[in-house]
Amino acid sequence: MPDADTWALEDHEIPTLQEGEVLIKTHYVSLDPAMRGWMNDAKSYIPPVAIDDVMRAGTIGEVTQSNNHPTFKEGDILTGWGGVQQYIATDGKGHFKVDTSMIPMTRYLGALGMPGMTAYFGILEVGKIKEGDVVLMSGAAGAVGSVAGQIAKIKGCKVIGIAGGPEKCKHVVETLGFDACIDYKNENIYKGIKEHCPDGIDVYFDNVGGEILDAALARLRMHARVVICGAISQYNSASIEGPKNYLSLLVNRATMQGMVVMDYAKKYQEAGMQMGMWLMEGKLKTEEDIYEGIENFYDTFQRLFSGDKRGKLLLKIIE
Amino acid sequence: MPDADTWALEDHEIPTLQEGEVLIKTHYVSLDPAMRGWMNDAKSYIPPVAIDDVMRAGTIGEVTQSNNHPTFKEGDILTGWGGVQQYIATDGKGHFKVDTSMIPMTRYLGALGMPGMTAYFGILEVGKIKEGDVVLMSGAAGAVGSVAGQIAKIKGCKVIGIAGGPEKCKHVVETLGFDACIDYKNENIYKGIKEHCPDGIDVYFDNVGGEILDAALARLRMHARVVICGAISQYNSASIEGPKNYLSLLVNRATMQGMVVMDYAKKYQEAGMQMGMWLMEGKLKTEEDIYEGIENFYDTFQRLFSGDKRGKLLLKIIE
Repeated sequence: MPDADTWALEDHEIPTLQEGEVLIKTHYVSLDPAMRGWMNDAKSYIPPVAIDDVMRAGTIGEVTQSNNHPTFKEGDILTGWGGVQQYIATDGKGHFKVDTSMIPMTRYLGALGMPGMTAYFGILEVGKIKEGDVVLMSGAAGAVGSVAGQIAKIKGCKVIGIAGGPEKCKHVVETLGFDACIDYKNENIYKGIKEHCPDGIDVYFDNVGGEILDAALARLRMHARVVICGAISQYNSASIEGPKNYLSLLVNRATMQGMVVMDYAKKYQEAGMQMGMWLMEGKLKTEEDIYEGIENFYDTFQRLFSGDKRGKLLLKIIE
Repeated sequence: MPDADTWALEDHEIPTLQEGEVLIKTHYVSLDPAMRGWMNDAKSYIPPVAIDDVMRAGTIGEVTQSNNHPTFKEGDILTGWGGVQQYIATDGKGHFKVDTSMIPMTRYLGALGMPGMTAYFGILEVGKIKEGDVVLMSGAAGAVGSVAGQIAKIKGCKVIGIAGGPEKCKHVVETLGFDACIDYKNENIYKGIKEHCPDGIDVYFDNVGGEILDAALARLRMHARVVICGAISQYNSASIEGPKNYLSLLVNRATMQGMVVMDYAKKYQEAGMQMGMWLMEGKLKTEEDIYEGIENFYDTFQRLFSGDKRGKLLLKIIE
């Protein structure tokens, strides 16, 4: 588990722009569980953040200067991989312009950002949900799970959430519209799944790993799909707990498949339009948990793993 | 682990046939790792063998009497789920006639039987091999692995086996034609995989589970497929060892899928024709390890788990 000394806050001059660059003033930094994985010195889907590098993060902000950038101009709102910093000088690669006239800026880091895209492609393309499926969603109050579960509801599935604590579970059912929610902190997870999914699970969307993954595997239906999206219970462990019940895949001819959202980059626009429509129609509800001040990055980061947040975790940078 | 008292050998009268039944005199009983799973009182892909039932097994034998059976007559060679017994009275359901003029009877319990069908559909339909793939095969000297690996060679893959002991490994490379074979009893499995699959694995066909599964997961290529066919290292354990490296599925967008051969029953004939051709052309080599006498069932069964057999394990019943 990272500690307060893992990151240092440094003061630098605002960079001078090269020809064709823009300066983006960061408004919000996205905090995501995936950040923890980027800090491990191991082969993964992207290179680790190197020591002394700016911490990688999704950001949204406003262009305050443009040195003859071919497309971006002052006042444009750009989202991209800005990192945990107040100003970004960039040629614009990996950043794109968004329209904040109808949709608040913060949504572009949540339902319309990486977590939302992860939810969308994970549940539809990897989970291959169809009407009538029984979908079990871990991290149901989180940035990805809350959206993936609502998409499954929109598509006519029965959706059972798993979240920590009665308040989160109430939110998952009453606000997000899931059919039920199991409180893993206060209920027996095996019993809860058995009660709410008496005929088993067609799709399990895993954000957490560990015991909850095992409990879900134990109740797979034939030809079930298990989407491996994350494993937040394991990110800070020295040794990973493997799913003891993996032979349920054999018995039930089921599939467990991993996903990384970046593979779907070519379809982000199409997904974003659909998700934007659902947001505007009120079919997709989002929640944001916003903290302030770049100096509070570490304290806010900890909330990803303590379970002490709801929905999309953001850090507001601009004063 | 079953012991010598798990089964009792009983003498019964040869059954009297009902109208439409045939009597099959068993020639060979097939011994397969799956038998161990059938003995657990747990939900699985077929009901467990009940206490006092005849032990379930694939068999091949000759019709010695027919009481007006519509299709089968004396002298026909039938294979099916005969169980561990010398005579079977049956209406013929689940048995079918085979031609032993070109292909020896025993092959219908091996390459042309359940293990061969498992290999065929596992490597082709679940593994989805294509030319140039790097295929890692555990249980490479076994009834399923030896066939699955040879099919992968026929299809133009690079195939690395894993087997126990130098003699088996030599057989896998020199007789079966695999590109290499790692001796898990005498070599470090992680090192062996790294050496023989320097660019990673496209398809891992798992017959064993445990540490070998973890070692394979650690070296998956992007979009790799892991076929969960069996887990012989785990069948006699009270607690299953889950694959600690399962998050390699996420990092590599890989798929782990379970299979049960019975799902492919409608295509057995098509597969059998293809496999029969490969056998007759000499492209597919088989090995049989044949023991004799129904009274030796338990001793022979133990060889499935001790690793003390090579190729298809059979028990010859007829004197």
